[in-house]
Amino acid sequence: MSLVVNAEEMGAFLDEVFPQVTGMFGIDVLDEDRLVMRMFVRDEHLRPGGTVSGPSMFGLADVSAYVATMARIGKQALAVTTNCSIDFMRKPESGRDLLAHTRVLKLGRALSVCDVLIFSEGIEAPVARASLTYSLPPQRP
Amino acid sequence: MSLVVNAEEMGAFLDEVFPQVTGMFGIDVLDEDRLVMRMFVRDEHLRPGGTVSGPSMFGLADVSAYVATMARIGKQALAVTTNCSIDFMRKPESGRDLLAHTRVLKLGRALSVCDVLIFSEGIEAPVARASLTYSLPPQRP
Amino acid sequence: MSLVVNAEEMGAFLDEVFPQVTGMFGIDVLDEDRLVMRMFVRDEHLRPGGTVSGPSMFGLADVSAYVATMARIGKQALAVTTNCSIDFMRKPESGRDLLAHTRVLKLGRALSVCDVLIFSEGIEAPVARASLTYSLPPQRP
Amino acid sequence: MSLVVNAEEMGAFLDEVFPQVTGMFGIDVLDEDRLVMRMFVRDEHLRPGGTVSGPSMFGLADVSAYVATMARIGKQALAVTTNCSIDFMRKPESGRDLLAHTRVLKLGRALSVCDVLIFSEGIEAPVARASLTYSLPPQRP
Repeated sequence: MSLVVNAEEMGAFLDEVFPQVTGMFGIDVLDEDRLVMRMFVRDEHLRPGGTVSGPSMFGLADVSAYVATMARIGKQALAVTTNCSIDFMRKPESGRDLLAHTRVLKLGRALSVCDVLIFSEGIEAPVARASLTYSLPPQRP
Repeated sequence: MSLVVNAEEMGAFLDEVFPQVTGMFGIDVLDEDRLVMRMFVRDEHLRPGGTVSGPSMFGLADVSAYVATMARIGKQALAVTTNCSIDFMRKPESGRDLLAHTRVLKLGRALSVCDVLIFSEGIEAPVARASLTYSLPPQRP
Repeated sequence: MSLVVNAEEMGAFLDEVFPQVTGMFGIDVLDEDRLVMRMFVRDEHLRPGGTVSGPSMFGLADVSAYVATMARIGKQALAVTTNCSIDFMRKPESGRDLLAHTRVLKLGRALSVCDVLIFSEGIEAPVARASLTYSLPPQRP
Repeated sequence: MSLVVNAEEMGAFLDEVFPQVTGMFGIDVLDEDRLVMRMFVRDEHLRPGGTVSGPSMFGLADVSAYVATMARIGKQALAVTTNCSIDFMRKPESGRDLLAHTRVLKLGRALSVCDVLIFSEGIEAPVARASLTYSLPPQRP
């Protein structure tokens, strides 16, 4: 699926619609084949033991699916998450950013389905896996 | 299942193990039949349009399942979420706290499974539904 | 939500659209507050040890969510399951039918979300919990 | 993760522990990197319109995760599915077998987590995606 929004435009759009998370996420790679988003790990995401919290990992998966979908249908602030299933598999390494690799498995008229695999940077085994469904606004250009 | 930790002790335990969310959640009801947790909705949880963000609702479901489980097995900081499936069904009302009603469906040797229904206070239709699995530490008293 | 199809009509509709499962499921209760569906447990659903197979329990949850939705929007063979999350919590008792208690949590323009709790008849602790999303056909009466 | 059971032994083991599904599934590829299982599509799996039923696709995902796990830990009939989340994304093509591509994302002491992508043979877009968690017996060689 070809892209209608590039990484730079998407970064600016995220700052506009989600000002409260500005500086929290970055786009490492965004092309037709894949999206890699980075979560800059800061103290406020940490749980006891120095690990990243579940809600922070959920947030990374959610914004990744949003960006992957928007890059293909255009900037639609009204798309909403309807379902997320997430498996937490390993403790993230403290002191390392998280990288989320996202694939768009379906982009239909009404729904988008994405699959996200989250890694601690530089570690091969994934820390979490998520699938997310977004409900898309009825009329799209 | 009878409780081994009451609401007051649990509140103090949460402040100790999750200091970063102190003041964010409260326990309205905790007895053998049910747990009702409250999320005090503040600006930092809001998305554009005044609604509560998905990660904040995930966080409420996660802490609720944790509290419901700990209240039955005792305070075990090492329990970890292994899976969460969440359906976002309606936009939370702005200006209203969220209330999470939680049931423990299974409390086994190795796993706890909880079901959480989240409401905007005073509104009948639920805003979200989640199920969560916690992996429990091997040796328990 | 009021019903537009009663239990008898629904049974006939299921026989018509799912002839391959005729005789497998029955409707014990269908009213505005709840749906209880019964799976008549037969040898073909059993796994080693006399337990009901996962796919059979999935099938029961799926048909229950379908019936609960159709009872409210009218008979629409084209509704399709888009997501199911299911937790298997206990081994069903052999020689007992399964009963699925279903609630419709959301009935929107495009999606229906149901919650299903499955029991071995006569046993208090649930064997499985499922949530299902159905995508509904665009034009509805 | 290296394999301790090969495709031929695994096929014989499935026939032994799941005799009721003999002839329904085959193993196309089983090596350290991937598992591809085939569901031989027969009339009994079909829904109106010639499509494969949801429970049949669930069954394929479930047996795939089981095989991928057993191939790594050895034949353990007692492993049980504890959770499955499945997204149905497209209608399978009638008259084509289904192929399930499975990855083992985590193989821990107590839990195995697999990711399954299901295709109609010869079609590029996936029909379904599933993640499954198996609880593993406590003592393993």
